[in-house]
Amino acid sequence: MTPTISMGQYLFKRVAELGIEHVFGVPGDFNLTLLDELFKVQELNWLGVCNELNGAYAADGYARIKGSPGVLVTTYAVGELSAMNGVAGAYAEHAGMIHIVGMPGRAVQEARLMLHHTMEPGMDQTIYVGMAEPIRKTHTILTDEKTMAQEIDRVIEAGVKSKLPVYIYVPMDVVGTPLDASRLEKPLSTEVVNSNSQMEDEVVKSTLELIKNSSKPSILADVLTIRHGGRELARRLASATQFPTYSTPLSKGVFDETDSKYNGVYNGEVSFPGCADSLESSDLVLNIGFLLSDSNTGGFTRKIPNGNLVLLGHDYCQIHDKKFDGIHFLPVLKRIVEEIEKDPKQSSLPKPDTRAKVETPLLSTSTSGPITQSYIWQRIGRFLRHNDIVLTESGTAQFGLTDATFGAHTQLITQTFWSSIGYTVGACLGALAAAKEQQRREKQLTSNETSPGSSSRVILIVGDGSLQMTVQEIGSYIRFGFTPVIFVINNNGYTIERAIHGERMGYNDISMLWDHQAMLGFLGARQETGVKGRSFACRTVEELEAVLTEEEFQGAGCIQMCEVFMEKLDYPWRLSSQIAVSRKKMAQAMALQG
Amino acid sequence: MTPTISMGQYLFKRVAELGIEHVFGVPGDFNLTLLDELFKVQELNWLGVCNELNGAYAADGYARIKGSPGVLVTTYAVGELSAMNGVAGAYAEHAGMIHIVGMPGRAVQEARLMLHHTMEPGMDQTIYVGMAEPIRKTHTILTDEKTMAQEIDRVIEAGVKSKLPVYIYVPMDVVGTPLDASRLEKPLSTEVVNSNSQMEDEVVKSTLELIKNSSKPSILADVLTIRHGGRELARRLASATQFPTYSTPLSKGVFDETDSKYNGVYNGEVSFPGCADSLESSDLVLNIGFLLSDSNTGGFTRKIPNGNLVLLGHDYCQIHDKKFDGIHFLPVLKRIVEEIEKDPKQSSLPKPDTRAKVETPLLSTSTSGPITQSYIWQRIGRFLRHNDIVLTESGTAQFGLTDATFGAHTQLITQTFWSSIGYTVGACLGALAAAKEQQRREKQLTSNETSPGSSSRVILIVGDGSLQMTVQEIGSYIRFGFTPVIFVINNNGYTIERAIHGERMGYNDISMLWDHQAMLGFLGARQETGVKGRSFACRTVEELEAVLTEEEFQGAGCIQMCEVFMEKLDYPWRLSSQIAVSRKKMAQAMALQG
Repeated sequence: MTPTISMGQYLFKRVAELGIEHVFGVPGDFNLTLLDELFKVQELNWLGVCNELNGAYAADGYARIKGSPGVLVTTYAVGELSAMNGVAGAYAEHAGMIHIVGMPGRAVQEARLMLHHTMEPGMDQTIYVGMAEPIRKTHTILTDEKTMAQEIDRVIEAGVKSKLPVYIYVPMDVVGTPLDASRLEKPLSTEVVNSNSQMEDEVVKSTLELIKNSSKPSILADVLTIRHGGRELARRLASATQFPTYSTPLSKGVFDETDSKYNGVYNGEVSFPGCADSLESSDLVLNIGFLLSDSNTGGFTRKIPNGNLVLLGHDYCQIHDKKFDGIHFLPVLKRIVEEIEKDPKQSSLPKPDTRAKVETPLLSTSTSGPITQSYIWQRIGRFLRHNDIVLTESGTAQFGLTDATFGAHTQLITQTFWSSIGYTVGACLGALAAAKEQQRREKQLTSNETSPGSSSRVILIVGDGSLQMTVQEIGSYIRFGFTPVIFVINNNGYTIERAIHGERMGYNDISMLWDHQAMLGFLGARQETGVKGRSFACRTVEELEAVLTEEEFQGAGCIQMCEVFMEKLDYPWRLSSQIAVSRKKMAQAMALQG
Repeated sequence: MTPTISMGQYLFKRVAELGIEHVFGVPGDFNLTLLDELFKVQELNWLGVCNELNGAYAADGYARIKGSPGVLVTTYAVGELSAMNGVAGAYAEHAGMIHIVGMPGRAVQEARLMLHHTMEPGMDQTIYVGMAEPIRKTHTILTDEKTMAQEIDRVIEAGVKSKLPVYIYVPMDVVGTPLDASRLEKPLSTEVVNSNSQMEDEVVKSTLELIKNSSKPSILADVLTIRHGGRELARRLASATQFPTYSTPLSKGVFDETDSKYNGVYNGEVSFPGCADSLESSDLVLNIGFLLSDSNTGGFTRKIPNGNLVLLGHDYCQIHDKKFDGIHFLPVLKRIVEEIEKDPKQSSLPKPDTRAKVETPLLSTSTSGPITQSYIWQRIGRFLRHNDIVLTESGTAQFGLTDATFGAHTQLITQTFWSSIGYTVGACLGALAAAKEQQRREKQLTSNETSPGSSSRVILIVGDGSLQMTVQEIGSYIRFGFTPVIFVINNNGYTIERAIHGERMGYNDISMLWDHQAMLGFLGARQETGVKGRSFACRTVEELEAVLTEEEFQGAGCIQMCEVFMEKLDYPWRLSSQIAVSRKKMAQAMALQG
């Protein structure tokens, strides 16, 4: 007799196979029995979140650190719809997500009963399935027992390969369906392979040729390099070639920023002095994992002629004007790196480039007085350790921290493309879970020795307006014993919106009555619960310096919140500059149209 | 020259014409200039909320008290998608909502620029418009200057008449488009009229006939009676006929519950003793504004034979087995009421029914000790005043408070059909705004005299798990100076889910570390801000009695929170009974299928 396994356990065993150890979600009556199955899979831990949008953000943040998709479990209608904005963000920025939705049993669906969470008599109960169509790569509704296992495999594989959200809809009554357990012995096929090997050959060969014949080559690795698992390859390419390297606002941290060949964040006209000139003077730009959105291209002001450009993307590559549709950069990059690495005489490389390193300007030498945008970001940059994980919220933090210089392995989570405010508070929970897994594995590798200094601190930087969107999830950090460092920028409202329009209009105000100093206590860190939390308020550079240089604060041994008071009309230069450039472009576009 | 008005002001003038004074939403860069126009319309006040889901809930709660649609303004993609679950709830329960979404300008849309909030290169920027299709009555994208004004009118009129959400998408660049202002002189056409007057005649005539010839007639007014503006008509019908009256879980409060003819909440097998028998013994049930969902029909256990039934619905009426498609109950009910009222000799009515009144059992006589489900709801019922507005969250509160007897004009907001937890915390903000408008108008009518006792208190009853979903909006109550009474049921997690499945499973747990006593202070009510807030913790009947009988607490002069500790496995009888009935029905259905 073939050994069997319940559908629910089969699904979660496949999830565990990806190395995933934490699953996020909210219970609801249509997913409770599915959660029973999850709880039987030892490899997985359930992190119940406060609401589904935060859960989607958490799954997204987890994926960005882990490299595997985050897993989110929600319930029919109310749950899945609440998560939509978070899932769409994971789609836009290729975070990867397996969204599992519990739904009414098949017979109930067929009878079209007017259950709670439906909307009208006789409604097709799969109506919500259609609503999510634009924000996923693929989906399955597990109705047919004969194909369930293969459908689960197909959808998960598609999710892993594409790094886009996928949906698995589970009718309540199929959770216990016995599936062939032996199928699990064959691992999922998750490797990205280009089916057109001839085209891949051509991209590899032409790129190597261009590299060899270049005189001023550069590597510009963008965010999809990281999302699609190419970060280490990009670093190996940089190391093997010793070409000058550049990141983008979204990919900041992709390269070791302390390296002598690193030249900063290239963002068209919104770059540090010398950075754009340096990149744009190249006769060859290897642009890996590009994402050419407004805020990631200085408002569409990149100036790299096609004749100098090799685009290595996730759905196409392009060499000068020749486009190779469907070619994924990952196998291409792997081959290029291996080719160059196995060439000890470096005959495949051009002569070393003598380009000067672009130095990062010091924006402020403040040592006292009010905390300004020009001062704080590079100062927080110096607070960061080489392997920290840092999250910057859409707004001043996101634009500001671009000015900092990161340590060798610092990882940044920010959502400059989708730009949903409140995102980082949820994403931070996911990053914390992923960091914990990483740490546990490292400990196992080093035979349980403690290796001090190697553990990643998780640092969240969020504005007061964004915090109000998703604040409750800080309670989840506390509940699950995480100890992030949280900076709250208290500057009286939606400063990014003020910079754009309506500087002093009431719609950009928020409640200024919140007592951030009481936040950690309210959400669980206080004497009575035995959970330690520390809160600080800084109105001056001196006060902030005192906090940042305190050893206990740096140690991140308990959850800590540092509230930083800043002027509401003080903007990071990158934000103002981005807006000015966008306005100019828009006016030009209008003039052309008119 | 024709006087003109900007598109934005035209839209908001039309909103104001409906009597609406408060608009909810969150700013975003695609709606800022639209908000400028809103701020120029004196009749409207902007209530900026913490996030869009809460905003949708607030608009929904506002609509339920106001009778006009709530208005929600969000921004492109991130905002509109965050609101989806809240909009869908308003659709399911006919709360009515005008959802106004700011989007990229027309030229930008046409160029398909890869802006923030889009998802991929070359994307059709109206992609999110399609996602909301199932949760709205109609929509418009204001791209054509020639039809903008009529489109705005068409969509708003449809929203008012249908009580379903409608969407108005506003590209950034059309906000200032000059429209013909004289159009505003002609009021919107919002009255519900049945186009088939012959069919309407037949329904009216047949119903009057059946009334006259009945011997045991009843009025069962369900929730869509209230939603579609028929509450006063239903009360007039009850008063004119002196027929026994019944409500449903969702329509509780539709009738004066202190009236001698009121017989309770009819919910099939999940009704108080005698209630179902009393209703089901009728030879004529006038069932107005019905919504036949699982939890509103005792799990589909209503027993009213078609031969005794007149259904007066919002999209069809049915007399015995004859269905009248497209006939709306409102004009029908109006004619029936007027017909009966103008008949002084009551020759149109049958002889008075001698049915005994169904008495409400007293579930607990507790005067001390632990606070139980059987005790608390009828006790809170006695705390309510005749014109309070009370919101009960999906969960124990919603099932429990059904046991209470309401005062003559008490209004209930609960979401038994859509059942999205966390809903009431947002909806309460809307109810507070609507109550404030009501109060202001009443004051105007009574020549600014203060009429003590007539003002509605707004009372929110929410469980600890639901509260964690949407807690930040309590900060908005404080910000805008509202003074609700908030009961927080602290019973260690998702008790409604425990009752359904996994009583002791970890997935039904929540963080138990929150300090509810610190909540109002954290969110703004504390000495330092000058906003008064009062918090109480009750673990026993004695402690709760002390709070409920305190004059200052009853006066609701400042925001107050009363935390009530209860056993996590104690369920209201209606919840347990509903689940038992549903399980039985489900098993039967399965047996039939098998």
